[in-house]
Amino acid sequence: MKIIGEKINGTRSRVGRAIAERDAEFIRSLARRQAEAGCDWIDVHAGTAPDREADDLIWLVNLVQQSTDVPLCLDSSNPEALALALDVSQRTPMINSISGEPNRLSGILPLVARYGCPTVALCLDRAGIPRDGASRLDVLRRVLEATRAAGIADDRVYADPLVMTIATSPNSVNVALETMRTIRAEFPDVHLTTGLSNVSFGLPERALINRTFLALAVAAGLDSAIIDPLDTELRSAILATELLLGRDRHCLNYIRAHRAGGLNSRNPKAVAQIA
Amino acid sequence: MKIIGEKINGTRSRVGRAIAERDAEFIRSLARRQAEAGCDWIDVHAGTAPDREADDLIWLVNLVQQSTDVPLCLDSSNPEALALALDVSQRTPMINSISGEPNRLSGILPLVARYGCPTVALCLDRAGIPRDGASRLDVLRRVLEATRAAGIADDRVYADPLVMTIATSPNSVNVALETMRTIRAEFPDVHLTTGLSNVSFGLPERALINRTFLALAVAAGLDSAIIDPLDTELRSAILATELLLGRDRHCLNYIRAHRAGGLNSRNPKAVAQIA
Repeated sequence: MKIIGEKINGTRSRVGRAIAERDAEFIRSLARRQAEAGCDWIDVHAGTAPDREADDLIWLVNLVQQSTDVPLCLDSSNPEALALALDVSQRTPMINSISGEPNRLSGILPLVARYGCPTVALCLDRAGIPRDGASRLDVLRRVLEATRAAGIADDRVYADPLVMTIATSPNSVNVALETMRTIRAEFPDVHLTTGLSNVSFGLPERALINRTFLALAVAAGLDSAIIDPLDTELRSAILATELLLGRDRHCLNYIRAHRAGGLNSRNPKAVAQIA
Repeated sequence: MKIIGEKINGTRSRVGRAIAERDAEFIRSLARRQAEAGCDWIDVHAGTAPDREADDLIWLVNLVQQSTDVPLCLDSSNPEALALALDVSQRTPMINSISGEPNRLSGILPLVARYGCPTVALCLDRAGIPRDGASRLDVLRRVLEATRAAGIADDRVYADPLVMTIATSPNSVNVALETMRTIRAEFPDVHLTTGLSNVSFGLPERALINRTFLALAVAAGLDSAIIDPLDTELRSAILATELLLGRDRHCLNYIRAHRAGGLNSRNPKAVAQIA
């Protein structure tokens, strides 16, 4: 299970303030703690102010690169900001994200191809997020036609089937899981990733809903997630799910996490030792 | 999700001692607490001493019936003990269990038919638990031929696909989940139930493994479980899973549990209010 650490996101008020005030130590700490918790990429999202995004993103990229060797995940819908951030990236970052939207296919896909980046591919297009799984598959098929035409191998693509909140869309998780299973069957080399911010929106005890969803999604083929890597309960749920599905040889990861005190504890360093 | 409360089981040392010493208050308390936590049946298992089982089971049945109106689940492989316990049962109990074993089909199935009981049907036979899902289905098909021939409707049968510990059988959960999906597809009226004592045997943090397994099993079609109804983390995982799968209309059960303080709390009475 590949983890994309989500904490450096300018749309969160505390992070947005740190970016605006150039509070380097706050950002460095978020980077280091996520790296210690064993994530595979550190997402950097500079916020949504068009006039500042490129400057802010470059500042974030430089700062995080000084703090850790973990590759970045450049999170933006702005091709210009991404191009400038790629120029200062020392390791090949992931790009978050392309989709079926024309501006992303024309503006971001060429960057993915030129720099050989892994990329998140959202199953949505100009019309938004399709309601049913079949239509999301149609979107992904078109995106993969474009990535293949650009010479990008399927195993560089992390498809995000997207999930609406269960609070207002009772069928949203069923659709997302079915979409995952179909993608896994039709495109065996394509990875599956997703974020957790939407599924529990508007409901109480969101962490419980999120980690239960993640367990179901891993069983449906999810092999990556955009999450808070410091959430040990969430990480424990992932470890337990992989164990149950027979993907943890000799139960080694699970037992190592237990010995490090990382299962269900509030000690992210413990998870770090096993991740 | 129907819950069979598992706590009154004479193979557990504390309960076995209470039965041997006729400690009525201890058993009554287990019965009341499980009833308050909203279980649908209370399992009674008198232990495995052949010379005492019938007497002990009758004592348990009378005691639990005095304490609560929740129906019992008579848990025994001994037809004589079951027949005597059925004689003193005031409400139609569930019987746990029949299977493909000849002595259960000849000795217990007639009791199920005569008293019109719902019954657990284990997917095993004289040769033990089949390793693969297809063979477990074969066993269940033979059991269902027998129940149908005895006039027992499919919706009275709670099939238990059985699950080995993941510690030594890395594929055991995959087999169990696949068996559940196949039973659900082939026998839509048959219920699915299972116990949780085996899946995590020999591993640390068993409660984490058990509740993660239960979430995956509910997604695979499980609609009943033999569990500790006082385990609020387990109950919360079930509620979250049913919510995510679109089986909790307007999120009412989930939100009610939250308001009662029952989600992830250590307060079984809170769960009781919402169950």
